[in-house]
Order: sequence, then C-alpha cells, then structure tokens
Amino acid sequence: MKKFYVELKKVVDDSYYIEIGHDLIDTLVRDIKNGLVPSAKRYAVVTDSNVKGLYADVVLESLKEAGMKADLFVFPAGEKSKTRETKAKIEDEMLSLGCRRDCCVIAVGGGVVTDLAGFIAGTFGRGVPFINYATTLLSAADASVGGKTAVDTPLATNLIGLFNQPERIYIDIDAWKTLPKRELSSGLAETIKHAILADNEFFCYLENNIEKVFDFNTEVCEHIAEKNCEIKYQVVMKDEREKGLREILNLGHTVGRAIETVSDYRLLHGEAVSIGLVAEVKLAKSLGLASDDDESRVISLLKRAGLPITIPDYIDKCELVKKLYTDKKVRDGKLRFVIQDGIGKIKEFDDGNFAKEIAEEDIAKIIYSE
Amino acid sequence: MKKFYVELKKVVDDSYYIEIGHDLIDTLVRDIKNGLVPSAKRYAVVTDSNVKGLYADVVLESLKEAGMKADLFVFPAGEKSKTRETKAKIEDEMLSLGCRRDCCVIAVGGGVVTDLAGFIAGTFGRGVPFINYATTLLSAADASVGGKTAVDTPLATNLIGLFNQPERIYIDIDAWKTLPKRELSSGLAETIKHAILADNEFFCYLENNIEKVFDFNTEVCEHIAEKNCEIKYQVVMKDEREKGLREILNLGHTVGRAIETVSDYRLLHGEAVSIGLVAEVKLAKSLGLASDDDESRVISLLKRAGLPITIPDYIDKCELVKKLYTDKKVRDGKLRFVIQDGIGKIKEFDDGNFAKEIAEEDIAKIIYSE
Repeated sequence: MKKFYVELKKVVDDSYYIEIGHDLIDTLVRDIKNGLVPSAKRYAVVTDSNVKGLYADVVLESLKEAGMKADLFVFPAGEKSKTRETKAKIEDEMLSLGCRRDCCVIAVGGGVVTDLAGFIAGTFGRGVPFINYATTLLSAADASVGGKTAVDTPLATNLIGLFNQPERIYIDIDAWKTLPKRELSSGLAETIKHAILADNEFFCYLENNIEKVFDFNTEVCEHIAEKNCEIKYQVVMKDEREKGLREILNLGHTVGRAIETVSDYRLLHGEAVSIGLVAEVKLAKSLGLASDDDESRVISLLKRAGLPITIPDYIDKCELVKKLYTDKKVRDGKLRFVIQDGIGKIKEFDDGNFAKEIAEEDIAKIIYSE
Repeated sequence: MKKFYVELKKVVDDSYYIEIGHDLIDTLVRDIKNGLVPSAKRYAVVTDSNVKGLYADVVLESLKEAGMKADLFVFPAGEKSKTRETKAKIEDEMLSLGCRRDCCVIAVGGGVVTDLAGFIAGTFGRGVPFINYATTLLSAADASVGGKTAVDTPLATNLIGLFNQPERIYIDIDAWKTLPKRELSSGLAETIKHAILADNEFFCYLENNIEKVFDFNTEVCEHIAEKNCEIKYQVVMKDEREKGLREILNLGHTVGRAIETVSDYRLLHGEAVSIGLVAEVKLAKSLGLASDDDESRVISLLKRAGLPITIPDYIDKCELVKKLYTDKKVRDGKLRFVIQDGIGKIKEFDDGNFAKEIAEEDIAKIIYSE
C-alpha cells in the first residue's frame, strides 16, 4: 500500500474589465489588436439569429478587416436554444472549421448567447478564452459578473454548466434600442432584483427614473448598467469568504425559474423573475420581513417596468409547485428560499445562512392566491 | 463611457491523495465516513457495464450499508460511450433522481469512466466534487494525475472537456486481475510512454520486469502505479511555470489518437498509442535524436508488453495522415510533434518549445513505410 500526494496549490487571477458605453465594436477590435487575448490565433464569433444581422456580422467583418481570422456561428434565437444540443452543434462546426485551442470565443448577444458561448469556451479544448459583447440589459444585469455559464435541460434550467470568467465584457447600451420593449422590460427585472437585495438607494433611483430607460437616456442607462455590475460584484466577491452569500442573487428565482420552465419559455426569463419577485416579497411579508408598503412598492415598480406581476392562467399551479423541487438550493429534498429584509437587504438567518427552509404549503398558499 | 474592474484573484488548493493498494473499497467508504467530502449528502456512482458487476455494485452496497444515500449510473463499456450523448443521459438520470449540488460523483472503472465521470462532475450544477476509483492500469497511468477529463466527438477525441481535480484517487491493483490481457497491455503503453519521456532508469526496470505485471506481482504493480503517478505529477507540476511542458505527455499520441479514431476504436487506446510510439521513435531517429538501439529497445519492450507495433491493414493511411490535423497541438494549420531525445528524455528545442513543427511528408513517409 502506497500513498502519493498530488500538491496543486496556485494563485489564480481571473480579473477582467467591463466596458460600458455606446457602439463598442471598434473598441473591441482595437483591444484585440492590442493583444487582449495573446494566445488567440483565430476568433469564433457566437451569436443568435436575431443579433446576427444587427451586430455579429459587423463584429465579424470588423475583425476580418483588421486582419484577424474569424468565423461566425449562429443558432436560433431564444431560451429554447440554450441546450446541450446547440452546444454540441456549434462545437462540431468549430471543430470542422479547424478551431482548436488557439481560438478565442466572442459571444455577441444577450444572456442566452453569453451563457451558452461561455460554456462552449469553457469546455472547448478543455477551455479557451472568451469575450462577451453584451447587447441586452439582461446580459448586462445578469450575465456580466459572476462567471456563471450554463445550458438548460428538459428537467431544469441552468443545472449543467460551469464557472468561467471572460477576458473582457463590453456592454453596448446602443444595442438596447434594437430590443423589443418586452426584452428591455425583462432585463429590468434583474435590475430591480439587485436593488431589492442590496441597495435601497438604487431602488429609489429606479422609482424616480425607470421610464427614462425606455427613452434610452444615456446617463440613466449607464448608471443602471454600472450599478448592476457593482451590486453583483460585491456579492460574488464577498462569497470568496462567506460561502452561501451568492445565493442571495437567487431572490425571485426559486419561483421564477419554475414558472419559466412550466411556461415552456412562453415567459421571458425576466418576466418569470418578476412574478417570482412578487411571490417572494409576499413570502417575506408572511414571515414579518416585509411591510405592506414594501410589497406595493415592489409590485408598482415591476408594473412600471412593463413586467407581469401575476401568474398567467395557462400555468398549471400544481405542476409549478412540483417544479420548485428542481431548484439548485434544494437540500435534503427541502425547499429553501432567499428572503428579503425590507427593501435593499437580504435576511441573514441565525445559522449564518441566507436561504431558509420553507414548507411546501407556505409557498403553495402564496402561489395559489395569485 | 464607464469602465468597471472585476478583481478576481484567489489561491486555489486542488491538492489530493492517491491511494495505491489492494481491494480499497473499504478504505474508500471509511474515508467518506470520515468526512472526505464534507459538502456531499449523496453519492452518484458512475460506472460501465463491465465494471458494474465486478466493483461498482459492491461500492454502491458498501456505501448504503454505511448509511449513505447512493445511486448507480451505468453506461455501456467502451471508448464509443465516451460521448456528449452518454454524458447527457447520465446527467438526466441524476437530475431525475433528484441529484443536485449536494451530490458527489464516484467514478468506478477505467480511463473511459474516469474521463467521462470527471467531466460530468465538472459541469453538474456547475461543478460537484468527485472521487476516482481506478480499476485499470490505464486509468492509473493516464487518468490519475493532471485532472484531464473529456469526451470524444465525431471529429476528434478528447477535444471537449475540462481540467477537474478529484478529491481522492484509489488505484486498486487487485482489479487489474479482472482485466482481459489486452486491456492490461493497453495500460502498459502509457507506462512505457512515461518511461521513454522522463525516466531511463524506469525504462530499464520495465525491461527487467514487464512480464511480472501479467503475474500481478505486488511489488512490481505497486511500483509501476506509483512511478506513473510520479512522472505525470512532475510534468504537470512543472507546467505551472513552464508553459507547454505538459505537451510532452503527448508522445506517441499524435499518431496514436489519429489511429484510434480511424480504426473506429477497434484498437484500444494503449494499442493505438503503442503504434504511435513506434512511429514517433522513428521520427526521432530521422531527426538524429534516437539511435537504432533506442528504436529496437522501444519496439521490443512494446512487443513484450503484448502491444501491436505496426499499423493494421484495415487502416486507411491516407485518412490517417489527414486525421493528424485534428490533433490539439496543431497551430496555424501545421502539424507539431513531441520528439524523444534518446530514452528517458524529451527534446527541448531552441525556441523553448517541446513540440516541433513537422512537415506532413516527413511523418507520412514513416506512416507509409510501416
């Protein structure tokens, strides 16, 4: 009998910059020319069918004009494409064009594109670098910080994936103008979530300015993009020490993700999260952690952001309650929820946890009363 | 325009122990009971159809007897199962049984099982811990150190995967007795590769003792298992500083992997590597880096290990040469080879690289002359 010790300690530096501004394709190409990704000999631009004509084609041509080798990989737009099958299809296309470990993935699009392309980059040749060019508010709000990448499976969303940090992120606010209003609203759901869980002042700012987002007011849009990054960064950073804090980003997502799946993606992610935020502020109220005023402020802001606040009739509520058990926070088969403490804060429970076990009947009561 | 800096620096400790011995299932269960994986509330035992009845069933029952929650996930034995499809199937089974981030994967089997299960663990819930219970010499030699996990795709082997370190590895030498002789020989190919690339003394040891492996001589088997870990560890560790050194582990694999794919896996991995080692010692000779004696010693040892040393007739050599271009070392569309420097050393070229660009005609000449 022998014992062999494999010592593998190292310092990892995954730091990166997020550029927030207008029409950043030239900036992207200049950064690449200046050596942003030294190992890259070629670029795989990954996008969806909506963003292709709007932005990805321009990225591709700009790279080529600058003398870079680049190819475009397009999948049908929509959450339904965020699957292992789409991932495999793009991998095969990349392989057949000769992409190897000397390539760099550039995701051009919204949350689905960045989630999928980041995951592809993470396992292609056991990991190649990637860059995010975020064209939606949702991807600015949700996918920019934290390094979460994933695909959905028939049984649950985002359960197959990995943590993977990009080389750089570009948040192009100009691109928000090309979004259908419904998509823009969807992005605001994550923004409002961030305000509820971490920043009362930002919540007030949103109450004062939310309509200006739809006018693409530069100052408001840039502030919102930056605040989203900042709040998410604070949470993700602190989680290096306080394990579990990251779960607070799940506010509204326990019910939200379940609704999204049961709706078979008829609801956009942010729309489902919006309904989830309403359910979860009611849950907080039932636990004495939110007031009637908190509840109505949350509901009112979501409404003004153009988001749904009740469960659509076509949702089978019994199926919805069952679906809650596919949530990642489930431990020992018990439902666990992140609970807001008023507005701008999450409740830290006595056991040091930020997620609390909730009996099925307590959350079911709220779901059935909506 | 705003710029936001996401600072993500941290110290990562992926260190782990490798236990080398006989019949280690009790040791595994005891270690788990003693808190080897504190986060784990349940265990997903992943195995193939060959190992199930021999070892995995026992692992499962032992875990259950010790009061642990555990489930078994079985796929058909063979390299042909090392696919994204098998990965997806097991993931779906795990999800449908309620496995979430509180599970730990235990791979019980050879290289295919550990490669596949390690990859599954790496992306399940964005990463859960895993343990390797290695039942073959090949998995002891090749898959124990380095953290490489992957699946094959129609276009190339091992190009989709990730680096993922296990919590602990158990190398059960007793299990080698259950291997078909062909499998045991296959494992010896990686062992001989390790000796050629790093340790002349170990090569001599193999020349003196190779037959004893087939008698399952405890001392010889344990020494070989340990040497494999040690050599691979030295290379992988040094690569933390000297980027590129890891490529020397590719000796014999440039031609080997291509043959494996073109043979449609009629050849076992080690058998293909054996033929690759012969081609690559000839390549070294053509560059003046190996002598006639080196060549005949390599060929003779491979033969005594029960390995093939010539390309089977059914291999289309033209297709084989083309397939070389799917190798991961290819840069700018050029073939690159790791070249041995006599026996026990790899050539470091003047540019600091361990892989050298080789013209297609030079390697084709060797392939066509075999």
